[in-house]
Amino acid sequence: MSRVLNNRGYISEATRKKVYKAMEELNYQPNELARSLYRRKSNLIGVLIPSVSHPFFGQLTYYIEYYAHEAGYKILLCNSGQDSVKEKEYIDMLKRHQVDGIIMGSHTLDVEQYANINLPIVAIDRHLSDDIPYISSDNYHGGVLATELLLKKGCKKVAHISGPLILNTPANNRYKAFKDVVTKENVEHFVVETKLNKFEIDEYIRLGTELLEAHPDIDGIFASSDMIAAAIINVARILNKKIPEELKVVGYDDIELAALIVPPLTTIRQPIKEIAKKAIELILDQVDGKKVATENILPITLIERETT
Amino acid sequence: MSRVLNNRGYISEATRKKVYKAMEELNYQPNELARSLYRRKSNLIGVLIPSVSHPFFGQLTYYIEYYAHEAGYKILLCNSGQDSVKEKEYIDMLKRHQVDGIIMGSHTLDVEQYANINLPIVAIDRHLSDDIPYISSDNYHGGVLATELLLKKGCKKVAHISGPLILNTPANNRYKAFKDVVTKENVEHFVVETKLNKFEIDEYIRLGTELLEAHPDIDGIFASSDMIAAAIINVARILNKKIPEELKVVGYDDIELAALIVPPLTTIRQPIKEIAKKAIELILDQVDGKKVATENILPITLIERETT
Repeated sequence: MSRVLNNRGYISEATRKKVYKAMEELNYQPNELARSLYRRKSNLIGVLIPSVSHPFFGQLTYYIEYYAHEAGYKILLCNSGQDSVKEKEYIDMLKRHQVDGIIMGSHTLDVEQYANINLPIVAIDRHLSDDIPYISSDNYHGGVLATELLLKKGCKKVAHISGPLILNTPANNRYKAFKDVVTKENVEHFVVETKLNKFEIDEYIRLGTELLEAHPDIDGIFASSDMIAAAIINVARILNKKIPEELKVVGYDDIELAALIVPPLTTIRQPIKEIAKKAIELILDQVDGKKVATENILPITLIERETT
Repeated sequence: MSRVLNNRGYISEATRKKVYKAMEELNYQPNELARSLYRRKSNLIGVLIPSVSHPFFGQLTYYIEYYAHEAGYKILLCNSGQDSVKEKEYIDMLKRHQVDGIIMGSHTLDVEQYANINLPIVAIDRHLSDDIPYISSDNYHGGVLATELLLKKGCKKVAHISGPLILNTPANNRYKAFKDVVTKENVEHFVVETKLNKFEIDEYIRLGTELLEAHPDIDGIFASSDMIAAAIINVARILNKKIPEELKVVGYDDIELAALIVPPLTTIRQPIKEIAKKAIELILDQVDGKKVATENILPITLIERETT
């Protein structure tokens, strides 16, 4: 039966019909499980992310489910917690469940392990192999706009708080852009890296406090996520630093929180809805056997609010 | 086949075996779809919520998936967007997919429609019928603690911004508690109600601005969610009102945002993790044919931060 489903050509159309006939004889009524077996399609898409409780992934998952539903697909949600053992388990589970494709927003495994999945995959923010399409916002351009804004606004000593640089992800281009701009403009700068397995506010607050206590004259911070930027705004309050007068902050993502916090956050907007739409498109194109582009870079926008 | 799955007793064990044997003869290899058909269990749980992009539901869904995974279950995620047509469609879809149960966090339909679902259900924050268990935090106690805190801190004119009161949900007990406390203490008060189909920050900001412009001497607000409270903090900034000196604010939920915003929000903590754990327990108990309690009220905690 799995051969039928996996569409590897070992089993003839006649045999597939025989399965279906056996079901019919047993007083078969349509149900999705049986139909999925027959049609070789589950209409399920696996969504594997670090955590849906992180606002960026919450919003992304909302739109992925929205566009999947429009196309007649359902979402199996998996939170890896950035744990590679759990991530591997989930991938195996999704294969056993005959999902039609996987949207990978969590990538703690070695690149080779993804190449062996043998299902349509779309990676969010990671280049896994030339055969696996990925979607990313224009991280380099975002990093340039964020850093140039800080310098234009008069910052003399700036810091970047990056995601984990150990993974070779497109998001590292935010860091590269920061480095390029400050090097070119010869501005004193620092880089602090967050840990791979942590999306924790307390950890961000600890990092930000350490940085600003060690270098109280830092006057501009480009944070690689709005959650990190929100933590920095909190640290500034604790250390009695006025934003934007004494410290300017730029985030990345433009999650809903960015407009809501006080002061409202200047940030680089990722097109979250468009990323979700593209992810579904790329899964469906692969299901249909179409050739898809490996690199899918979507434009970002600088949103100036009140932290710069 | 659906009769086999629905376990209604029309089909004998012998017949079920015959289906399985037919599969085996056709060179069957284990796959979850086929196994689900045979075992009458999909190990899928449907999660139907307004939107996973709302932080409360994002955190709740994270923990639901966590405990489901621990128990060997997978989550089919559905965002109703508080649209009753979409909610009905999703329920039908979940039934076709033979989910073992549904966790309902969205309730836009008439109560009778839920009674006909004929599957293990757990409702979050709504009493649908005496046969359908629901989980709620102790909303009345939360409302009392929030309102009493405002009065204890000296507020003379207070407002409650409630969820939609049109649905008879346990969350309305937050409103009832507010009314009871202010009536007993004879304090001037206002109630503003948010709309059913809106979880939108702009809408909250509009409501809050109208309220505080019409009654600039309001000095205490109990908001029925942290998102609403965050919007009020924003409104206060726009209207140049100092928090907590001129206006005190208490939220409800204690989502991550509450500790992160400036000033950090005083709020009523819902035990989100425990609600998720209980939801999975109640589904599994029903799957196992156990009798479960209809009402499952979990305790809340007052978290005093800097807005009171």
